[in-house]
Amino acid sequence: MERKTLLTDCPDAQGLIAKITNICYKHQLNIITNNEYVDHTTGQFFMRTELDGIFNDHTFLTDIDLALPKGSRRSLVSASRRKQIVILVTKESHCLGDILMKAYDGSLEVDIKAVISNHNTLADLTEKFDIPFHYISHENMEREQHEQKIIEHISSYAPDYIVLAKFMRVLTPAFVERYPHKIINIHHSFLPAFIGARPYHQAYTRGVKIIGATAHFVTNDLDEGPIIDQNIKHVDHTFSAEDMVKAGRDVEKTVLSHALSLVLDDKVCVYGNKTVIL
Amino acid sequence: MERKTLLTDCPDAQGLIAKITNICYKHQLNIITNNEYVDHTTGQFFMRTELDGIFNDHTFLTDIDLALPKGSRRSLVSASRRKQIVILVTKESHCLGDILMKAYDGSLEVDIKAVISNHNTLADLTEKFDIPFHYISHENMEREQHEQKIIEHISSYAPDYIVLAKFMRVLTPAFVERYPHKIINIHHSFLPAFIGARPYHQAYTRGVKIIGATAHFVTNDLDEGPIIDQNIKHVDHTFSAEDMVKAGRDVEKTVLSHALSLVLDDKVCVYGNKTVIL
Amino acid sequence: MERKTLLTDCPDAQGLIAKITNICYKHQLNIITNNEYVDHTTGQFFMRTELDGIFNDHTFLTDIDLALPKGSRRSLVSASRRKQIVILVTKESHCLGDILMKAYDGSLEVDIKAVISNHNTLADLTEKFDIPFHYISHENMEREQHEQKIIEHISSYAPDYIVLAKFMRVLTPAFVERYPHKIINIHHSFLPAFIGARPYHQAYTRGVKIIGATAHFVTNDLDEGPIIDQNIKHVDHTFSAEDMVKAGRDVEKTVLSHALSLVLDDKVCVYGNKTVIL
Amino acid sequence: MERKTLLTDCPDAQGLIAKITNICYKHQLNIITNNEYVDHTTGQFFMRTELDGIFNDHTFLTDIDLALPKGSRRSLVSASRRKQIVILVTKESHCLGDILMKAYDGSLEVDIKAVISNHNTLADLTEKFDIPFHYISHENMEREQHEQKIIEHISSYAPDYIVLAKFMRVLTPAFVERYPHKIINIHHSFLPAFIGARPYHQAYTRGVKIIGATAHFVTNDLDEGPIIDQNIKHVDHTFSAEDMVKAGRDVEKTVLSHALSLVLDDKVCVYGNKTVIL
Repeated sequence: MERKTLLTDCPDAQGLIAKITNICYKHQLNIITNNEYVDHTTGQFFMRTELDGIFNDHTFLTDIDLALPKGSRRSLVSASRRKQIVILVTKESHCLGDILMKAYDGSLEVDIKAVISNHNTLADLTEKFDIPFHYISHENMEREQHEQKIIEHISSYAPDYIVLAKFMRVLTPAFVERYPHKIINIHHSFLPAFIGARPYHQAYTRGVKIIGATAHFVTNDLDEGPIIDQNIKHVDHTFSAEDMVKAGRDVEKTVLSHALSLVLDDKVCVYGNKTVIL
Repeated sequence: MERKTLLTDCPDAQGLIAKITNICYKHQLNIITNNEYVDHTTGQFFMRTELDGIFNDHTFLTDIDLALPKGSRRSLVSASRRKQIVILVTKESHCLGDILMKAYDGSLEVDIKAVISNHNTLADLTEKFDIPFHYISHENMEREQHEQKIIEHISSYAPDYIVLAKFMRVLTPAFVERYPHKIINIHHSFLPAFIGARPYHQAYTRGVKIIGATAHFVTNDLDEGPIIDQNIKHVDHTFSAEDMVKAGRDVEKTVLSHALSLVLDDKVCVYGNKTVIL
Repeated sequence: MERKTLLTDCPDAQGLIAKITNICYKHQLNIITNNEYVDHTTGQFFMRTELDGIFNDHTFLTDIDLALPKGSRRSLVSASRRKQIVILVTKESHCLGDILMKAYDGSLEVDIKAVISNHNTLADLTEKFDIPFHYISHENMEREQHEQKIIEHISSYAPDYIVLAKFMRVLTPAFVERYPHKIINIHHSFLPAFIGARPYHQAYTRGVKIIGATAHFVTNDLDEGPIIDQNIKHVDHTFSAEDMVKAGRDVEKTVLSHALSLVLDDKVCVYGNKTVIL
Repeated sequence: MERKTLLTDCPDAQGLIAKITNICYKHQLNIITNNEYVDHTTGQFFMRTELDGIFNDHTFLTDIDLALPKGSRRSLVSASRRKQIVILVTKESHCLGDILMKAYDGSLEVDIKAVISNHNTLADLTEKFDIPFHYISHENMEREQHEQKIIEHISSYAPDYIVLAKFMRVLTPAFVERYPHKIINIHHSFLPAFIGARPYHQAYTRGVKIIGATAHFVTNDLDEGPIIDQNIKHVDHTFSAEDMVKAGRDVEKTVLSHALSLVLDDKVCVYGNKTVIL
């Protein structure tokens, strides 16, 4: 007995749920949870099915493929295998610390294979948790060369996802294209507000009563990539710019960890520049 | 073409989703949304399926009945027919006013057939919206006799649901049994905290930092009935007991309206003393 | 015995609280609540003092004026006199309905003197509450001429504040200048996100997980004026553009009513393009 | 130049703010923030004043004492000295981990002097952060004897506060009395709901839609002591009892850390069985 998650994504058609769940039934796989969504604007169908049973992946997926229309995407993922991530950081500890602690105490079920940084600042924190820390300075190096070194390290770990936990470098299109829907970033402020430098200072100057953060997949196509999660904190006139930074850190780490947990549970389907969370 | 909602609720078994969605497919009914839940503790299966198509209710439900195990419950409800409610109140206007306004502006899709009260206080407010108001004083009357008069009025409207929007009288078991899972109540404070009189004064005395409210179906079996929705508001030391009452009103009306909208959309399944919101 | 609120706003200096509270003490005025804030970036001092006692406004304010530095602003407002507002609307009922109901049931302590609109749509709703409704069509009229007619009506009521409860016309600088810090507007979406037309459709297209609203004073100086309150609602992929509009209405009315209650309680100081809420 | 916080708490009287701020002015102390509250039910006055300047504590406090009525409490605390805490835990890591990480990254400004536990489980986590861990088993020991050993360790650190971060032992009245308003506890569930064992299982069985947590000072007088902070998380029917435990951990650690930050900033006044947060 094993547990696996089937993710399906195709143009909508009558009878899709029946067809897929019939195949599960025929293979004697028990449906633990089933979540389905149809985007009626675009006519796209999404389904996430958690299954218990004895799997013959090949025959099962062959049956699924025969049942689905052309242009379908489907994947079958083990729910017991822990996902592996590599985390990229610069100097700020709040998001990294939160993920390290949640991985340690089991509230995030994930293997952190390594932390990579262009500064040495977070080596001590990372190594407390017996996780390899790679310091790859960007000084005296072309951007491509620097990224090449990072890619080499990432490749040696072959992670499921790359998490940008306040990695303050702009990635080249080549880097991004190498990891489609595999790079998760946390963005200060709730998109599309306050794009640009020093967003919390912009927020302070504007006298906002809310600050927020956005976790999203990194893409080259559009400005910011599909949003996974967003959240906010209330602030008021007593908050200095520095207090806003601090409150921002709090919401950033909360949003990134939550987005990561959704991704690790195979609940996030990317469709165009949006996500469907099943 | 019509839209209807099929609600199914039965002991879990392999292939249930396949069977039900097959029948929909066979009847050429298009699934708009499908939500399914299995309570793995009790082994109960719940499904809510929104369907588009041309319905032959009798043959469709016969097929469904044949497919489901013994002890199943199912219903097929028109999604276009507006539900009808009767509202019972005493003197406080906040919940009634909120429902009246939301029904007026279309944010609650409901027909309010009548408002019934043991006081005359809210007649003026009700009649602004051209809704019949029945003042049925409980003075000089046995409880059963008073309820009998209320029941007569309710019966004349044959509503889908009865909403207790701060109706401050305890209902007899006979009254409650007459309307199983049809009476929705709003309870000051989040159950099971502060059961009893003057809950906001209890909350004030206790120095709480949160006050809440609970919307639930009324039952005789258990103390409070299946919870539909709960929410809270943050309060602090500057709140007097009266301020807490005011904040409580705000959360009460929000919770009651939200619970009502879930019920009106046929999203609430009652199972034992709990609800499953699909 | 009366209750009044003293609002003070001046460059910070040592001993300000002592000086002001001494004067209150000398006049035998009892301090009910006192809230004070210093913006340490700009060095501005703000204080709101609720006082109980027998007031001689002239001698009291003369003493206050002598105590404060040059360039100070101060006002003494009766806390018992209900503020008067005129509401401007176009066709949408959600914000107007919410204010009408809250004024009716006492959760907003305000006198709504009149509702003015460039459409006739909301006449029925307004008149339910026995409030004058003035339909002033903008058709076949210059903007200035139309505003002139609105101003005439406003002037006849001499309100404390003008509330734009989804008034969908851009106001001329001349109109805005006539009512400095007296016009309160509700803006779809949390500034500065999604400025422009059809913000909820923009939000839908972007796949956001949050939608929000902003209540602010209207000014000509800057793009949007000092923010009074902001709030959000969580949304997800199941929300159509229309659902986002609906959720937006909910948050718009909540934010506008809350901002209005702060203004009515004399808790909002405007300073530059920001507000201090005391 | 130093920064200190003056906390004052006494029966209300006319002119108190004037008297205290006059003394600050006379001593050439600049008021950075001043927060004042009068409980009009009991007639008690509370004030928190952050001051900048050169302090002569003795003469300043002598002046304050002369100004205040009999039965006043006042304290003058350095705002720059980091408070010291000792943390008591049993086996659960979530609250301890959160405090350790926040102390490490500076979002909680506190010195954790030691962690004491009746189990060895959290030694590894504590020692990652180079903080002494004392394992004091309660086995084969009277409660008083066990507490005596804990007290000896606590005494050696002379902490400002003792934090019960899921310490699952009931403390004796003698222990509690030794540290009045110095012991901060996190309580599963929002008081007074679900007092007793396995609260999340009770919540699950009841079908609640909210779970919460309460941070409070530990006292012997009343059942639960003055509440410092409370918060909640929304849950639904898909949450198993185990999921509720997990969600509970999340809210517990958030509430405890927030309460601790308020206490560390000298913002919490205890009055009877309530707190005033200034």
